Amino acid sequence: MRVDVLTLFPEMFEGVFGSSILGKARDRGLVSLNTVNFRDYANNKHNTVDDTPYGGGGGMVLKPDPIFAAVEAVTGRVVLKEPRDDEFGDDAPASEERGEVEGLRPPRVILMCPQGETFTQSKAQELSRETHLIFICGHYEGYDERIRSHLVTDELSVGDYVLTGGELPAMTVVDAVVRLLPGVLGNESSAVTDSFSDGLLEYPHYTRPVNFRGLQVPDVLLSGHHAEIDKWRRQQSLLRTHARRPELLDVADMTDKEKKWLEAAVREQGESDAR
Amino acid sequence: MRVDVLTLFPEMFEGVFGSSILGKARDRGLVSLNTVNFRDYANNKHNTVDDTPYGGGGGMVLKPDPIFAAVEAVTGRVVLKEPRDDEFGDDAPASEERGEVEGLRPPRVILMCPQGETFTQSKAQELSRETHLIFICGHYEGYDERIRSHLVTDELSVGDYVLTGGELPAMTVVDAVVRLLPGVLGNESSAVTDSFSDGLLEYPHYTRPVNFRGLQVPDVLLSGHHAEIDKWRRQQSLLRTHARRPELLDVADMTDKEKKWLEAAVREQGESDAR
Repeated sequence: MRVDVLTLFPEMFEGVFGSSILGKARDRGLVSLNTVNFRDYANNKHNTVDDTPYGGGGGMVLKPDPIFAAVEAVTGRVVLKEPRDDEFGDDAPASEERGEVEGLRPPRVILMCPQGETFTQSKAQELSRETHLIFICGHYEGYDERIRSHLVTDELSVGDYVLTGGELPAMTVVDAVVRLLPGVLGNESSAVTDSFSDGLLEYPHYTRPVNFRGLQVPDVLLSGHHAEIDKWRRQQSLLRTHARRPELLDVADMTDKEKKWLEAAVREQGESDAR
Repeated sequence: MRVDVLTLFPEMFEGVFGSSILGKARDRGLVSLNTVNFRDYANNKHNTVDDTPYGGGGGMVLKPDPIFAAVEAVTGRVVLKEPRDDEFGDDAPASEERGEVEGLRPPRVILMCPQGETFTQSKAQELSRETHLIFICGHYEGYDERIRSHLVTDELSVGDYVLTGGELPAMTVVDAVVRLLPGVLGNESSAVTDSFSDGLLEYPHYTRPVNFRGLQVPDVLLSGHHAEIDKWRRQQSLLRTHARRPELLDVADMTDKEKKWLEAAVREQGESDAR
């Protein structure tokens, strides 16, 4: 997979793209992670990438030209031609011009913005099947609408909170996607992740020491009785999911016996709290 | 505000904490941003910070000792004493030992984990009123449960997706919180942010050129007629919110006239799509 991130702050990415699992995946040639400063494509005297909004109001707006030019430089394809006198740009077949005519799958061009679709694990899985992702990161300015309407294929938001720019969201999406690529995760980490697959929150983990400042590891985990350990862990997962994310239980994989056990355990807890 | 991040990958933070708005806030002394490698507190021959889980199973679990010791070094206070023979550690008044006895507000100790409370803008506002935040970032391992039960005050998740570690989530929370601190944002950026305050998505922005490869800026924005521009922008906000995040309209600040207009506009659009 190839990843290109268009940003005015490429230095923000160095530590994240160079360390840990992303850094290793890059070193092993499993992914190519690049940053492109779109100020290099400003093509005007002062390297201006933003300007005041038409219609007035505060804030600055990112201009279309540098961002279109940077995406075109990265893909080697013209996204949107200058219209001839006898055609209107608005009706131009943008998808065809993105490279589908050549029979190649066109890259996904992803705009990070608070108005985008909320990023989820299933979106990460979808993106992990692509061969080329391009991210556009704005930085507290708005985007000229023509970027949104004629250049990007996806708009993504990582959550309902306001950040100073799209850089951390882009790193977040890249991290979630790259760890899913074949060969990136070793066995040591994939095992832990598997515990998400049953739709419940993880059970509590304990490691050495058995006694930490008076806090003991639960006896059952030291018992060596594997059936009992499995049962305890499953029950802890159910209790924790009920306490923290009850909506997950609606779609979780549970037996009728487990449902009854959880109901009784919650009722008992309520009665004990009331006493 | 003081921020300490406990991590095994401090180099991941350099680019993000040193650039843009976070870097400027740090340079101007508005926030102190520090990373602490908790491997330095491992206190064993091989600097081991993780170990296999009691009860068996795959994956590794972060040990309690290094993380407790790192938090105690950062705060200068013992979180949890070794119990004397006549007391049980489990009943120790943890909150008192966190420093409340001295009349000082104890720091928030925040664990980044997928099971945590979902981070939102209101949580960012709450945390921006604190004076000291400590973040604990695990890295694909689990946490020993005693960290969760006796050290942390908050568990946060940035969204429903799986990442390789807590580092990007911690940077995300720090970014969202620090930009709210007094004096951090200049006027140029706060104006844009204000457009979130009415509970609707932003209207489309346009800047120069008026004609970009045949794509025109809407005439109304060039008209100079400010009442018409305001009306158009408001309507675009309503339409976009309806199309992308309809649930926001339930709590948005709208007049009855606007509600009727939106209903009619959506109906008209549906009829035109059907033709």
